Amino acid sequence: MAQESALNYLSHGQIPFFRLPQAPGEVPPGTRAVLVGVPTDLGATYQPGARLAPWHVRRVSALVQGYHPGHRLDVFARVPAVDGGNVAFPPFDAAAMREAVEARAAAIAARGAVPFTVGGDHSITLPILRALSRQLGPLAVVHLDAHLDTSGPEIWGEPFHHGTPFRHAIAEGLVERGALFQVGIRGPWGSAADDAPSRGHGGRIVTADEVAERGAAAIGEEIRRALGGRRTYLSFDVDAVDPAFAPGTGTPVPGGLTSREAFAILRALSGTTLAGMDVVEVAPPLDAVDQTSNLAAHLLFEGLALLALANP
Amino acid sequence: MAQESALNYLSHGQIPFFRLPQAPGEVPPGTRAVLVGVPTDLGATYQPGARLAPWHVRRVSALVQGYHPGHRLDVFARVPAVDGGNVAFPPFDAAAMREAVEARAAAIAARGAVPFTVGGDHSITLPILRALSRQLGPLAVVHLDAHLDTSGPEIWGEPFHHGTPFRHAIAEGLVERGALFQVGIRGPWGSAADDAPSRGHGGRIVTADEVAERGAAAIGEEIRRALGGRRTYLSFDVDAVDPAFAPGTGTPVPGGLTSREAFAILRALSGTTLAGMDVVEVAPPLDAVDQTSNLAAHLLFEGLALLALANP
Amino acid sequence: MAQESALNYLSHGQIPFFRLPQAPGEVPPGTRAVLVGVPTDLGATYQPGARLAPWHVRRVSALVQGYHPGHRLDVFARVPAVDGGNVAFPPFDAAAMREAVEARAAAIAARGAVPFTVGGDHSITLPILRALSRQLGPLAVVHLDAHLDTSGPEIWGEPFHHGTPFRHAIAEGLVERGALFQVGIRGPWGSAADDAPSRGHGGRIVTADEVAERGAAAIGEEIRRALGGRRTYLSFDVDAVDPAFAPGTGTPVPGGLTSREAFAILRALSGTTLAGMDVVEVAPPLDAVDQTSNLAAHLLFEGLALLALANP
Amino acid sequence: MAQESALNYLSHGQIPFFRLPQAPGEVPPGTRAVLVGVPTDLGATYQPGARLAPWHVRRVSALVQGYHPGHRLDVFARVPAVDGGNVAFPPFDAAAMREAVEARAAAIAARGAVPFTVGGDHSITLPILRALSRQLGPLAVVHLDAHLDTSGPEIWGEPFHHGTPFRHAIAEGLVERGALFQVGIRGPWGSAADDAPSRGHGGRIVTADEVAERGAAAIGEEIRRALGGRRTYLSFDVDAVDPAFAPGTGTPVPGGLTSREAFAILRALSGTTLAGMDVVEVAPPLDAVDQTSNLAAHLLFEGLALLALANP
Amino acid sequence: MAQESALNYLSHGQIPFFRLPQAPGEVPPGTRAVLVGVPTDLGATYQPGARLAPWHVRRVSALVQGYHPGHRLDVFARVPAVDGGNVAFPPFDAAAMREAVEARAAAIAARGAVPFTVGGDHSITLPILRALSRQLGPLAVVHLDAHLDTSGPEIWGEPFHHGTPFRHAIAEGLVERGALFQVGIRGPWGSAADDAPSRGHGGRIVTADEVAERGAAAIGEEIRRALGGRRTYLSFDVDAVDPAFAPGTGTPVPGGLTSREAFAILRALSGTTLAGMDVVEVAPPLDAVDQTSNLAAHLLFEGLALLALANP
Amino acid sequence: MAQESALNYLSHGQIPFFRLPQAPGEVPPGTRAVLVGVPTDLGATYQPGARLAPWHVRRVSALVQGYHPGHRLDVFARVPAVDGGNVAFPPFDAAAMREAVEARAAAIAARGAVPFTVGGDHSITLPILRALSRQLGPLAVVHLDAHLDTSGPEIWGEPFHHGTPFRHAIAEGLVERGALFQVGIRGPWGSAADDAPSRGHGGRIVTADEVAERGAAAIGEEIRRALGGRRTYLSFDVDAVDPAFAPGTGTPVPGGLTSREAFAILRALSGTTLAGMDVVEVAPPLDAVDQTSNLAAHLLFEGLALLALANP
Repeated sequence: MAQESALNYLSHGQIPFFRLPQAPGEVPPGTRAVLVGVPTDLGATYQPGARLAPWHVRRVSALVQGYHPGHRLDVFARVPAVDGGNVAFPPFDAAAMREAVEARAAAIAARGAVPFTVGGDHSITLPILRALSRQLGPLAVVHLDAHLDTSGPEIWGEPFHHGTPFRHAIAEGLVERGALFQVGIRGPWGSAADDAPSRGHGGRIVTADEVAERGAAAIGEEIRRALGGRRTYLSFDVDAVDPAFAPGTGTPVPGGLTSREAFAILRALSGTTLAGMDVVEVAPPLDAVDQTSNLAAHLLFEGLALLALANP
Repeated sequence: MAQESALNYLSHGQIPFFRLPQAPGEVPPGTRAVLVGVPTDLGATYQPGARLAPWHVRRVSALVQGYHPGHRLDVFARVPAVDGGNVAFPPFDAAAMREAVEARAAAIAARGAVPFTVGGDHSITLPILRALSRQLGPLAVVHLDAHLDTSGPEIWGEPFHHGTPFRHAIAEGLVERGALFQVGIRGPWGSAADDAPSRGHGGRIVTADEVAERGAAAIGEEIRRALGGRRTYLSFDVDAVDPAFAPGTGTPVPGGLTSREAFAILRALSGTTLAGMDVVEVAPPLDAVDQTSNLAAHLLFEGLALLALANP
Repeated sequence: MAQESALNYLSHGQIPFFRLPQAPGEVPPGTRAVLVGVPTDLGATYQPGARLAPWHVRRVSALVQGYHPGHRLDVFARVPAVDGGNVAFPPFDAAAMREAVEARAAAIAARGAVPFTVGGDHSITLPILRALSRQLGPLAVVHLDAHLDTSGPEIWGEPFHHGTPFRHAIAEGLVERGALFQVGIRGPWGSAADDAPSRGHGGRIVTADEVAERGAAAIGEEIRRALGGRRTYLSFDVDAVDPAFAPGTGTPVPGGLTSREAFAILRALSGTTLAGMDVVEVAPPLDAVDQTSNLAAHLLFEGLALLALANP
Repeated sequence: MAQESALNYLSHGQIPFFRLPQAPGEVPPGTRAVLVGVPTDLGATYQPGARLAPWHVRRVSALVQGYHPGHRLDVFARVPAVDGGNVAFPPFDAAAMREAVEARAAAIAARGAVPFTVGGDHSITLPILRALSRQLGPLAVVHLDAHLDTSGPEIWGEPFHHGTPFRHAIAEGLVERGALFQVGIRGPWGSAADDAPSRGHGGRIVTADEVAERGAAAIGEEIRRALGGRRTYLSFDVDAVDPAFAPGTGTPVPGGLTSREAFAILRALSGTTLAGMDVVEVAPPLDAVDQTSNLAAHLLFEGLALLALANP
Repeated sequence: MAQESALNYLSHGQIPFFRLPQAPGEVPPGTRAVLVGVPTDLGATYQPGARLAPWHVRRVSALVQGYHPGHRLDVFARVPAVDGGNVAFPPFDAAAMREAVEARAAAIAARGAVPFTVGGDHSITLPILRALSRQLGPLAVVHLDAHLDTSGPEIWGEPFHHGTPFRHAIAEGLVERGALFQVGIRGPWGSAADDAPSRGHGGRIVTADEVAERGAAAIGEEIRRALGGRRTYLSFDVDAVDPAFAPGTGTPVPGGLTSREAFAILRALSGTTLAGMDVVEVAPPLDAVDQTSNLAAHLLFEGLALLALANP
Repeated sequence: MAQESALNYLSHGQIPFFRLPQAPGEVPPGTRAVLVGVPTDLGATYQPGARLAPWHVRRVSALVQGYHPGHRLDVFARVPAVDGGNVAFPPFDAAAMREAVEARAAAIAARGAVPFTVGGDHSITLPILRALSRQLGPLAVVHLDAHLDTSGPEIWGEPFHHGTPFRHAIAEGLVERGALFQVGIRGPWGSAADDAPSRGHGGRIVTADEVAERGAAAIGEEIRRALGGRRTYLSFDVDAVDPAFAPGTGTPVPGGLTSREAFAILRALSGTTLAGMDVVEVAPPLDAVDQTSNLAAHLLFEGLALLALANP
């Protein structure tokens, strides 16, 4: 379950995530991480396109090698991983998508492995949290995003679009009280009450400006200490990062994190027990030279490295 | 209800369809044509983005002047027209979209006006046909497209996506038997039975190759004669035209019509009694220099000219 | 004069600035801010295209909501605002453009409102300053830009192109001595004398490098203190920001501000009495995924928030 | 004055038109054709950018070799040609541009050479016609375009923008009566009177549709016969060609000529005595993969071949 | 060895050619067609990028269904086919590439299957012809291209670049005398002798203009008759097609075939005994919305259909 | 050997680097800096296209003026410079390219001038270092890059691709021990041993993260002090800079330097004795609005300013 050599992948017509072995729909014995795609953007409020991300992120992940020089470890040597294919569901049925994603995340976790999911839009996160918290109890959540994603159904008439997952997750008890960290938040809100769901649950909101002021490493360190070893779910909406670094996304907000800050925050979480991770809202039709897909692949690799660090 | 001068539009921040008066949600007395937008792509099977078309088609329609030199008539002098705004619906609810579109088309027709609708994906056509045929009886339909759009729910588990409108329209008796003309059809099919719904209803399928062989004017003339004055609905999926001319669309098929052939077919329909028209599947995120939006605006103008010809 | 709901705007074919009421050419009673567009790029020395900005900035401004979480205020509740349409002028006549812009800014100010202008290129700023200083006396000016814009006619044979507005503004006494702040300046100059007009007027030049070294908030704070409550005009050339964040502009210079720094500087100006603001040099043909138009909309919102802060 | 070898051009940092010798501002003895650029788009009514065309057309012209297999002749062996550089003028002064272009065309013609001019927008054509007709008398004109370009000042308040050159040329007696051929015309007009200037001068208007119906070769042959050996000026606006083939232009109109039809028309003019040629309205910022610049280079080559055919 | 259902492919992270079974490096018993990729552009003279084509053509081929309505047959039912992966070779060694491609083509043919190869640049064709003619004797060749590809080493100092394969193929006796058909040829040449290699071997050169004049079907029919049942290799350089339809290619030449003409020529070859086919010169970095990759997938499908027709 | 005026360059069809005099293949007496291009990407492992950079960097360098306000000096007044054209070599022969580049660098250095080379990919650096160290002895090297570029032939079977130059330079003794500074390094490695060649030679590796933590000026200052007046070669791979700022490059890695940091590092090197500089890996086909070419031109200007500072 290690990477294939770069030369060898050229001889294949297909590029699995990180040149890993393919195991569609399966969790081979000994697997620690399963990478899956969820090709949907039924939850997008503005520009769609995220349904196409799994194929593009796989393609560009061919360039990501396996040794992490910052953490000084060979990630795939410590974390046996496979490309688990995409989650299957009828593509026009958002409820069926949520069920299928939940079932898949549950199956991966049941085998003792950790799901790394590439969206799709952010509506894929709720079913993953449901599956994981059912097995593991309420989770700590580190959520990088420009938006709080705690909207209710009142604006668009739909309770489960991509701006709502954390409202449900809080309401359903999937997130441990006081263990929600939302980083990269910025841009105008609908009203002063937008942060009520997060604040009401003891959540910590770190704006993009605060990251700039205090430094990404300090923010990451604060979160690492606060997590204190809790099982943590990491949800990375690429629009946490500024559109300069992640142009290929559907609801961009200027003033975001740099890629380097994003990496610094993730690296500072070393020691965290990762229960799962997603990277969502990559929209390839808006990503002319694969900049956002490439960033997504590197963000996933940072998550895998966190798992490796806790996996000696 | 005539166009504003080109100079004047520069002083407005907004550009209604063809610089026409705005009448959102209304049909002012004397109106013959109402242009409306339906910003949805919930019916898209592959690349979405058509939800953004109404704003972009309006923007580029500023360049379209009002005199048609081929038909030698001043279109908006003969066809008082307004920009009726977009149809309103909860954006995540395809069924509600269909109801709202049907209601709007019915309201326009009830006032004796003709709806010209800019999608959105092709799933917007069925509710328009429902509304119009309820008032006018089964209609003749001229359908330009790369695809037959008579799929059933078996492939994607959804009966009303953008590849299905004419299956329903036939089954519901909205299309007059023997009065369905599908032009521009090409590309591989799922099976030999793909054309069964059309053929079973006496439909005439004109492939893109046949257009090339016999000439667009001849095809248009054949259809005009066959229509014989019937009330006709014109549904124009921009992917009828080759991706060279209409790159901004979600399911492109090479080998399509040229823009000029598309215009020639429409012009040959002079004398046809138009009950309504739509232009669908324009996807602005894939349309770098507005080529497809611009084509859509000109196609609409050709349809308005047909109405003008029958409106002396 | 508040924003329309996000859902409602979908039902309109048009998107006024920030979903505000439209009042083309007017200043309704009680209005505090009037947003106008000036579609011209007759002043561009290199790549043109800024003439198209007003329509694109309006379109993407639909996504900007009204509550500013940093300042903790509901901007449009405090600042009744309208979309005043575009300024009308014969599009090939730069002198006529300047007259029309001056007349419009004067009319807005005469009604006690504040003009927020979306260019167009930077040559639109001089007539605004002329109008405002005539009513209000010499103004303090905060000018964000990569360039000093104090060129004379010697290079291109034209006294009023987009590289010249502040030379004239200084010479004509429109800018208070010692109250010119030019931020984001960088890149090679023609000669050591390029900064003579600014320095000779007691201007403060803050290079992009100085912003990086001292921090945007510190720079903003310094300027805020120096302004000391003076009536201030804010002129924001998007090329102040690095081309990574603002690729859609005609004379980009690498090494610029980040979007976040730009916001931080504007936010630090809280308490400033804003006499007017412009955002110029957005060139949509160079802005593939609306990154620069989107930034421009958010910059305008920051300016409106400054007005709101001073408007309790 | 022949082309340099393809290999050699790689060793130069610069690429003159067709790898020809450079002679900026000069006409070396024996020269038959001088290629010049006019970097202006002050005459553009909609999207500008044509000012950048001369550099991009030169760059891509490196790929054009010198033997014309259709006419079976080595073009640059028969037509000694140079790259004469760009015409110099103060870039904000349209009147000065016209004077400079006129002077340059006159100087070239005075040396017995033929000017091949790359715009720039279409406003560069009038001064060339003025210069050439002063020396040669009224000329026959073959004008390929989507637009008639005979507008007056009433719409935009400017008599010399890019939609007006042939109105002036006719009024000033630069075009021989009955010897104006306008090919590729299409799209809506302002009114039925739009073709009055052309028709009143005995002009022949060939719509894009007529080209499709009768065939490009037949149209070319008709024009060739009608020219009957007259000295002819060839003005090629790239928007004569459909935006599918020439996306990089500022006022595109769907339904245009194919590239192949454009070539066929030019090739059919063999035997024509060419007094000059221009290719205008190439807008590189809208031309992502150089498609339009490349077409322009090939169109110029066809014009040079016509000169060669008459130059045995 | 049939296609997977469209719905099922969504659940895989990988998309083999036409959703076919994968058999990297193998030829399963019963296979009639093996699709392979050759990711190289070491032979490109101008803009490279074709090395990336195999992955992109596979991705977009997911949309191509299996029933050919023109020939009225279910292609993959008649032609058991697999995705054979890419040919492996050290990516900087053009000679090793040629050896590996030759070995692979030989292995496929030795098993009685037909290789369908996606380049890569045109330098991949020579080794395929070497392999096939060794087993089958000299072949008839139908070569669609803008260029004759019979250059020698004199221009670029390299005998095996992408402009040379047919010179070698002729010289090495791989092509049957009188059975070379080169279609789509256009653009200037280096000299009158450019066609000497083809003509000297009895080759038939059909220019793009001749296709326009006589019609694609007539050309195809002429070639079909001339082939007379000979074993035929089909080499399709996408630049045979006009850059409007195939913008993503490295040496585009305006004036090319339409997609529809390309299809018409291939369809007219029904009855031909296909020994192999390639589609080359697709350059994804120049192909913003996959237009050229999509065309390539459809061209391959037409070739597979030809094989199916001869395989009842 | 000073810049031409901005106005004058408009009258030329060609744009030499920085509007400098052209001296292809020569070093005029008194020249201090020679700018040359090397149009090759034979060394690219992933996306090619850098062969086209020299023409595009020249084109956009027209906007770079000559006075450096940070260093307060008129660069070209102190550093007489010319555009030396491109290095000539058979374009398919990497070994010949290396010989030609080495010969050219040697010839420039032999005349007492300093070569500033625009790639092309990074494989052009080794021959320059060979030429310079032969005349000047082992050099200090400041190398900005995302990658260490010390790979061996084991991965791709080629010893001289763009990921290998510093392995050879170290092994061949071209780099002074302890005087190698590699800045901007980031992203996963193949193994823990990737930095062995650099470390084994006493090299200093500064990751992109370290730049962020300590500040670019501090890093630059550390390097300046460590250089201590040694003759220094500066090799700038644009992928040192983040893809947000330099999207047009073939092997981008997220998390890189900002443009401003890159400039700050270069400016901090004032006093350094520059033996040569290159800017490599600019890939214009991936650089939609010239962002990367523009950055490259400014980086070169910073290098020229360093030479000027040491040249009073």
